[in-house]
Parts: sequence; structure tokens; C-alpha cells
Amino acid sequence: MSSGKGTLYGIGVGPGDPELLTVKAVRLLQAADVIAAPNSGGESRTALNIVKEYIEDKPVLLCPTPMTRDRETLNRAWEDNAQQICALLGQGKQIAFVTLGDPTVYSTYFYLHRRVLARGYRAEIVPGVPSFCAVAAKLGVPLCEGDERLLVVPASHGDLADSLDADANKVLMKAGRQLGTLKETLRQRGELEDASLVVNCGLPGEQVWPSFAQAEGDAGYFSLVLLRQGEQTEHRKAGETE
Amino acid sequence: MSSGKGTLYGIGVGPGDPELLTVKAVRLLQAADVIAAPNSGGESRTALNIVKEYIEDKPVLLCPTPMTRDRETLNRAWEDNAQQICALLGQGKQIAFVTLGDPTVYSTYFYLHRRVLARGYRAEIVPGVPSFCAVAAKLGVPLCEGDERLLVVPASHGDLADSLDADANKVLMKAGRQLGTLKETLRQRGELEDASLVVNCGLPGEQVWPSFAQAEGDAGYFSLVLLRQGEQTEHRKAGETE
Repeated sequence: MSSGKGTLYGIGVGPGDPELLTVKAVRLLQAADVIAAPNSGGESRTALNIVKEYIEDKPVLLCPTPMTRDRETLNRAWEDNAQQICALLGQGKQIAFVTLGDPTVYSTYFYLHRRVLARGYRAEIVPGVPSFCAVAAKLGVPLCEGDERLLVVPASHGDLADSLDADANKVLMKAGRQLGTLKETLRQRGELEDASLVVNCGLPGEQVWPSFAQAEGDAGYFSLVLLRQGEQTEHRKAGETE
Repeated sequence: MSSGKGTLYGIGVGPGDPELLTVKAVRLLQAADVIAAPNSGGESRTALNIVKEYIEDKPVLLCPTPMTRDRETLNRAWEDNAQQICALLGQGKQIAFVTLGDPTVYSTYFYLHRRVLARGYRAEIVPGVPSFCAVAAKLGVPLCEGDERLLVVPASHGDLADSLDADANKVLMKAGRQLGTLKETLRQRGELEDASLVVNCGLPGEQVWPSFAQAEGDAGYFSLVLLRQGEQTEHRKAGETE
């Protein structure tokens, strides 16, 4: 590995608020020669918008990330992206790839990370604040405390009943299109009163619903439902403190 | 609520590296009149050490956090802490309470947050990078991707077998004292080869063991085991990229 080669940084930019980037993320964005970003339905401009005050007029490389489950289409797109990135790394460029939240939590960044490493280049992951932490902070409740467990579930996971049966607090990610079904299921299980909804946390159009039952209107891709088992005991705890 | 009153900020300072504080955390620490920190076995000086370059010689208030499950002792300690904090807030002081990782993930901060709100003062949570995100970044692997679920389990949760049976990637937090038992259990289940261990991520004495099986020596309180179901398919995926 030649020391003249550049490094790819996979940078978690947090959930939306530009102030929730880490000091390290800001330093690396400001030092980068090229900013790379996923170019897909939901995420592309969102991640770039969050960092725009830190990158000024640096060149931006948009990486097509087809929203498909077809492995061949996906592979071809990421092979092309990796080839472009590695060509720049070979010229000694430092590249910052921006991704919403944290790069290790449901990010497309790993499609790139693995391929860049396999080609013999350097790639480093810079952690960020995941959306579920920002959502819990916004709601003013813990994700997990004491001996509680926490289960994080993507909307794409097929077995909702199994997830809801788990003895754990739950975070249901990117619940947007499934919100109607989810609300009805929680109502039937008698758990709707324990659920909260946050849409577009820290982004334009943010909605915070401490009670999911009262949520109205449409919700987009960046919707997150938090379901806490501890909720029932919350009033008891509050009572004790007085 | 008088506008002359101060605000308590519960600030997640991330897993250890001072560069992993958010821009917001740094701003609030620098603006605070008083820095508060939990004063218990593991955490007290750790959180303060992480932020020391940002707080210079500001006054520090150490909040006793007894490591006990006795509710009465705990309640008494946190009532005293809340009383001290609220007295300062009443004088219009801005207080930054520092806590490792993220305040909504197994933090003692909520003992204070609830009590301060109940007394009619302002309290705000500032999210941070949780240790498990930093650990996954250090190992260079995703916590969860595609339709994988993620289960976060504290060492204090009693039913290890139930946690390991879950159809999810797993993060086992603060596994320090249980490491021997955990390793033997994973070996018996034939899952030891899929597990990684990181001790003191970003802190002095950091150890990174991509293979938990090969880990040697003692591990302290801040030990985290990552168990990924996707590990078996990793080589296949890497193969596809060539």
C-alpha cells in the first residue's frame, strides 16, 4: 500500500441537525479533497444538505445506489462506484463519503467499504449519532435502562409479530410505508399507548408524536416508532421521586 | 418557568475519543457554568477525562451514584443530586452533565433528568455516539444491514440463552465480569467464531479482538462483545465483489 494513496472515510453525519456531527467528522470533511454521497431515493440530498456548511464548494461525487433487491443490479452499481472512488484514491485524493446516522447501522456505505478494501486501498469508518438516539432524546425517554434490552428492527424485516413479541424495548426503523399496518397491529395487541412516533428527526418537516395513537397525516421514509416496555412503570417511577 | 432559570443539559460524550463529541456537545460544554458528572465506580473520571480539553478549569460537581440495586439508597442519592443541581439552576446557572456514550442508552442520567423536570426546571438531552457504534467502526463491520435486526443486551440481563437464541445480531454490553462464562457458552453453541470483543474502545488500554476466541488477559468494565449472524455470509459477499 503506497503512502501516496488517499483514504476513503465513511462518515456518519448523524440524524439531521448539522450540530450533531462529531468534531472528527467536521475535521475530515474540511480536509477532504472530494465529498462522495449516495444518490438514491431518500438519502442523497439529505446527507449532503446536512454537511453543506462544512464542505463549501468542494467537488461532490454522487454514487448511484439503486433502490432494488436485485443483487446483480446492485453489484454492478457498486462496482462502478468503487472503481471511480479507487481511481481518485490512486491519485492521492482524500475522500469523505457521507451517510445519514451511523455508517454501521443500515447504511449502504458497506457496499463501498468492502470493495475499496478488497482493491487494496485504505478505508476508515467514522461513527456518528444514530437516528434512534436522537429520537429518544427528542422524546425525552431512555432507549434502554437497567436490565432492559433494546431490539432494533428495519421495516424490511418480514416478521413483525415476532419482533413485537420480543421481551425488549423496540425501535422500528424507516416505518413510513408500514405505519398504518403497524398502528393497527399495536392497537390489537393493546400496546399502542406505549408507542411514540418521530418523523424526519432533525430534518425539515420534523414531527414528534409522544403518543403514536394521536399521530395524524402522512409520514415519510424517515419515520421511527419507539415502543418501550418500561412505559407502564414510568408513572410509578415518577411517583417515587416526589 | 422563569426565563432567568438555568438549563440542565444531559450530554452524551461518546465512547472515549474526545474527537467523537458532537459539535453541539462541545458548544454546550464551553458555554456551561458548571460541569456535573456521575461519581461511581467505573464512569466518573472517565467521562470527565474525555471532555477535559473542552472545559478547562470550570467548576465540577461530582454526583454520587452508588453502585447498588437497593432502591432506597439509589433514590436518596439522586434526590440529593437533584436538589444540588436545582439549587444551581435556580441561580440561573447552565449545567452540563456528562455521560459516556449516549444519554438514552444505559445511562444514569435519567435518574437526574426526571427529578429536575418534576421540580419544574428545564432539562435537555444531547445525543452522543453510543459505544456499540464505535466498536463496530473499529472492527470494520456493520452492526446491522439489509433486513437484519440488532439486539442490545446489558450484562445485567438475566437470560443469556434467550438473548443468544434471538434471530438478530447481538451487542452484549459491559460484559467484563461475565466474559469467561460468555466465551464458554458461545463455544458450546458453536458461535464463538462469529464473535468479536472490544475492551475500552477509544479509552486508555483499548483492546480490539476481531476474534473473541483469540482474546487473552483480563477485560474491564467497558467490554463489548459483538455477535453477527451475517458473519458466515461475509466471505461469500467479499467473493462476489472480485
